[in-house]
Amino acid sequence: MITLEVSLGERSYPIHIGGGLLGRADLLQPHVRGQHAVIVTNETVGPLYAARVEAALASLGKTVRVVTLPDGEAFKNWETLNLIFDALLRAGADRKTTLVALGGGVVGDMTGFAAACYMRGVPFVQMPTTLLAQVDSSVGGKTGINHPLGKNMIGAFHQPRAVIADIEALQTLPPRELAAGMAEVIKHGAIADAGYFEWIEQHIQALNTCDPELMALAVQRSCEIKANVVAQDEREGGLRAILNFGHTFGHAIEAGLGYGEWLHGEAVGCGMVMAADLSLRLGFIDVQTRARLRRLVEAAMLPSVAPELGTERYIELMKVDKKAEAGSIKFILLKKLGDAFITTVPDADLHATLQHAILKPPAEATVA
Amino acid sequence: MITLEVSLGERSYPIHIGGGLLGRADLLQPHVRGQHAVIVTNETVGPLYAARVEAALASLGKTVRVVTLPDGEAFKNWETLNLIFDALLRAGADRKTTLVALGGGVVGDMTGFAAACYMRGVPFVQMPTTLLAQVDSSVGGKTGINHPLGKNMIGAFHQPRAVIADIEALQTLPPRELAAGMAEVIKHGAIADAGYFEWIEQHIQALNTCDPELMALAVQRSCEIKANVVAQDEREGGLRAILNFGHTFGHAIEAGLGYGEWLHGEAVGCGMVMAADLSLRLGFIDVQTRARLRRLVEAAMLPSVAPELGTERYIELMKVDKKAEAGSIKFILLKKLGDAFITTVPDADLHATLQHAILKPPAEATVA
Repeated sequence: MITLEVSLGERSYPIHIGGGLLGRADLLQPHVRGQHAVIVTNETVGPLYAARVEAALASLGKTVRVVTLPDGEAFKNWETLNLIFDALLRAGADRKTTLVALGGGVVGDMTGFAAACYMRGVPFVQMPTTLLAQVDSSVGGKTGINHPLGKNMIGAFHQPRAVIADIEALQTLPPRELAAGMAEVIKHGAIADAGYFEWIEQHIQALNTCDPELMALAVQRSCEIKANVVAQDEREGGLRAILNFGHTFGHAIEAGLGYGEWLHGEAVGCGMVMAADLSLRLGFIDVQTRARLRRLVEAAMLPSVAPELGTERYIELMKVDKKAEAGSIKFILLKKLGDAFITTVPDADLHATLQHAILKPPAEATVA
Repeated sequence: MITLEVSLGERSYPIHIGGGLLGRADLLQPHVRGQHAVIVTNETVGPLYAARVEAALASLGKTVRVVTLPDGEAFKNWETLNLIFDALLRAGADRKTTLVALGGGVVGDMTGFAAACYMRGVPFVQMPTTLLAQVDSSVGGKTGINHPLGKNMIGAFHQPRAVIADIEALQTLPPRELAAGMAEVIKHGAIADAGYFEWIEQHIQALNTCDPELMALAVQRSCEIKANVVAQDEREGGLRAILNFGHTFGHAIEAGLGYGEWLHGEAVGCGMVMAADLSLRLGFIDVQTRARLRRLVEAAMLPSVAPELGTERYIELMKVDKKAEAGSIKFILLKKLGDAFITTVPDADLHATLQHAILKPPAEATVA
């Protein structure tokens, strides 16, 4: 087991990464105070792992309840969040109750937001079971739900007390979910570490089959990069925005198709290809770098061709992105591989990228 | 105009108290950044004052929108909160948008919670127009909504950028609302300043008719007491709980009768009489002090006889209070007039208080 730390003063917390961690009461023990613990999971993950976590908590003498949510991004809304509040109130859960998020990014985001709001804030622990959640959403304290008019529009910054990432849980992950997580892994290389990007390129086949040793290394390096960025900018005042590389386009794809049609990671994969194209048009990266990003996204079994929503619809959807200010859309672009920055862009280049993005790969070699 | 400060490090903010402040652009100017400002008000207050605030914001060059909520505690729920989110998203409100809460405690609590959650946090300004909001709910950053199973169960700590309390707005307040605010004024004397309590006793008739000079003094002294407690314990780790004097009983009354039946301040008024009775039974205060509290509550036109919900129902309702821990109910009691503390109490004394509370005043002179 490897343990990293997210350094946030009194809100600092450990990230434990390794195999067989879901049943480890010793890892939960320092972070679960009070008498009540409530495991929040979904109908897919619960049957696989909830009993293991429940037993670990029970062995610590806790009163444990399990709340099982429907599975999927389409349920990341107030109605589902309210299932958690209902269960907490019916159970008489007090201010010292600890919530445990057992599942992927949706479960983690919703459980974290429920913890942020229940009685104005109770502690929670992240036990991410998907690659996306392990390398990205479980670290950093961003929590929230979707609104029909925008993704993650309602939420809070609420740091977990610990993140416990059990690599073995990834073995049961459907290939499409694994690929979606790889999008964030690729992102970390692209925005912060060209050497890591190259390492992913070299090992993408083994990572696609979830090789345990390589996967543990990827989770570790990605968590290091994310923890480092979060420690410098907890509430996204500046630097942290680079973690949204591919997300401005990605969120528009998700919203435009309807949440749940493409997985978040799939939309981010395609969004990174689009952001690389825009970076090229603005003269920051060369054709080869754009091609490397596209090839790696495709090698990770992620879509690289954007859905045809129409240019105006894309722009309309991006204007409600949280990074937008006074109607001007902010993009995270690559200065070079391993180095990202936030900027606005000329309309003409944005239109060109949006038109190019829906073309099939043969158009890749040149700037359209 | 008097200006106090709530000292919370980088979250410190001013409280301006005086007449004619609602139209003062100079008071809003330092706190409204960005291009968008959204005034949240209700259908009672909006027609009286929204145009004035709108004009002040427009004079600063802001794009201003007004969201009008239905009036009343019964609407302090997710559905109404979502009206604010809908309006913000439809208006394309960005992260720098400032919300302005123009109204009473319900508008302030909901606007503050919307500001806490919209895009994970935007700034807001409190412009309280009721006495209760001016002396209590607008100061201290407690925000939230009710859940069918408990009051203020879903919320956040989110400090405003400024509180602008226009004393003139109290002139249009219905007598019942003014009395409800007086409950919190009496509370501040009871828990923190016996001299202030005596001053309220002396001036209660003039305060009941909203004498502007006396009322400005009451708002000032109450805000000083509240700001001082909040500065010492922002997130209610200990001391701040004393501000809930009368609230454990009061919340049970509100929930038991159905939110909106009694005003919050009415329930708190009666709850303080009950808490004083319990303080007497536990040997902390004498019969005279209990009688002074009851007389002042009654002189402020507030109910002092509790509704007959049944002892078991009261206890059940109090067990879901946010201060409860592992099923044990916490009470704020008086050590003496001007000095409060948090404690658990023996069942027998609690039962005696609950039985005594529903009796009419002639029973006051003795411990039943």
